Amino acid sequence: MDGLVVVLVRPRNPLNIGAAARAMSNFGVHRLRLVNPYAVAFREARSAVGATALLKDAQEFKTLAEAVADCSLVIGTTAVRNRALQHPLKRLDDGVADAVRNAGRTAILFGSEKIGLTNEDFSHCHWLVHIPTVEGHISMNLGQAVAVCLYELARSSSLREHATEKVQAATAGDIEQIHASGYVKPGNDAVAEKKVRRLMLRLNLRGMDAKVFLGMVRQIVWKLRQKG
Amino acid sequence: MDGLVVVLVRPRNPLNIGAAARAMSNFGVHRLRLVNPYAVAFREARSAVGATALLKDAQEFKTLAEAVADCSLVIGTTAVRNRALQHPLKRLDDGVADAVRNAGRTAILFGSEKIGLTNEDFSHCHWLVHIPTVEGHISMNLGQAVAVCLYELARSSSLREHATEKVQAATAGDIEQIHASGYVKPGNDAVAEKKVRRLMLRLNLRGMDAKVFLGMVRQIVWKLRQKG
Repeated sequence: MDGLVVVLVRPRNPLNIGAAARAMSNFGVHRLRLVNPYAVAFREARSAVGATALLKDAQEFKTLAEAVADCSLVIGTTAVRNRALQHPLKRLDDGVADAVRNAGRTAILFGSEKIGLTNEDFSHCHWLVHIPTVEGHISMNLGQAVAVCLYELARSSSLREHATEKVQAATAGDIEQIHASGYVKPGNDAVAEKKVRRLMLRLNLRGMDAKVFLGMVRQIVWKLRQKG
Repeated sequence: MDGLVVVLVRPRNPLNIGAAARAMSNFGVHRLRLVNPYAVAFREARSAVGATALLKDAQEFKTLAEAVADCSLVIGTTAVRNRALQHPLKRLDDGVADAVRNAGRTAILFGSEKIGLTNEDFSHCHWLVHIPTVEGHISMNLGQAVAVCLYELARSSSLREHATEKVQAATAGDIEQIHASGYVKPGNDAVAEKKVRRLMLRLNLRGMDAKVFLGMVRQIVWKLRQKG
C-alpha cells in the first residue's frame, strides 16, 4: 500500500475529504492528492478537529495530469456501467488484483460527489473499476467508496504479498511526454489527445520502452518537420 | 443479500445511521435494526432530507437478544485483535465467505462509535470478524465499516451464488429458548448466561436439533425440580 496515491478530483464536501483521509489512515495509505478541490471544503477539512497529518500534508494540483505524473498505473472509479465507456471496466476485486502487481506508484481516482469522473478524467486511466452495487442505487458516498476500494486493495495486497512478477511500468509522466512530443499539440485537439493517451496507456509500456518509444516519435516528428 | 440483517448496537451519531442506510441501499440490503439507539440521533437520521425508505422502516429493539431472535447466524464486527477474545475471530473475507453458506437469516452487528461491541454483545455471536486495518489506526468510522462489510458480503455472495451446501441452522431465538429453559435463569448469573450461549452457538445446531435439544433440557430440568 506504500506506493499508493489516492486522488480526489474536484471534491466538494469537507466531511467526505475527512472521511477519505480517515479510511487512508485505517489502511496505511499516506499520499492524498486533490485536483481542483472546492477551496472552502479543503480548508475546512484540514482545520477540522482530529484532522490527520496526512490530510494536512495533502497536495493540491490544478490538473489531473500533474497529479498522476509520477504514477505508472492510474485506476479510475466509476458507478457507471452502461455508458459507452471506451475504457476497460473491471469489477473492483479484479481491477485491484491486477493492480497490486504494479511495482511503481499506483493512483486511484475518485470523482466529485455530484458527477464522478468525466470522460476527460478517464482518458488518464489505464482502466476503470466499479464497485458491485445494485441497480437503482449504484452511486456510493465518496468517503464510503474510498474505504471500500482501499479495503479491497489491502485485502488483495496481503493475498499477493509474495507475487513475483512485478514490472517497472512507465509512469503517466513518461506517457505524457510521448504524447506531448508533437504528434498531438496538447489542448489543440481534445478528442485526438484523449485517443492517443488511451492508446498509450493500453500498450502498457514499461519504463524503458516508453523512453525508446519517445525517441522514435521525436525522430519522426523531426523528419516530418524537415519535409514541411 | 436478501436474508441479511444489519444491526447497529447503541449508535450515537445520526450521520452514521444515515451512512449505514445508504451503504445498505447500495448493496441491496433492506433490513436495518437498531438496539438502544440514542433517541435524538435516530429521530434526526430518519427525518433527514433524502432518508431512505429502509431507514424509515428500521426497527428498534431494547435488547440485542430480541433484535437477532429470528437469525440463525450472528456475526459481530470488532476492531480489537489482542483482547482475550473468547470467540473465534476471522478476517472479514474469511468470516463472510463462511457466512454466505447460511440459508437462514444472517445478522451482522456493529457496535457504538466509541466502544464498539461489548463482551456481552459478543456472547450473542457465532463468530467475530475484523477488517484488516493497520496497527495504530484499527478503528474505522461506523458508516465506512458498514460499507466495507456489505461490499465483502456482496462480493462473496456473487462468487458463491451457486454454492449448494446450505443448511437450515437454528435461529438465535431457538437457542435463547434452550438457554432460558431453566438451566440458567436469565439475568441471575450473567457470566454463566454468556458461557452457555457461547457453547450453544459453537455447537452450530440445525433448527431441528435445537428443538430436540430443548426437549431434553426441559425433561432434565423437570426431573431435577421433582427431586428438589
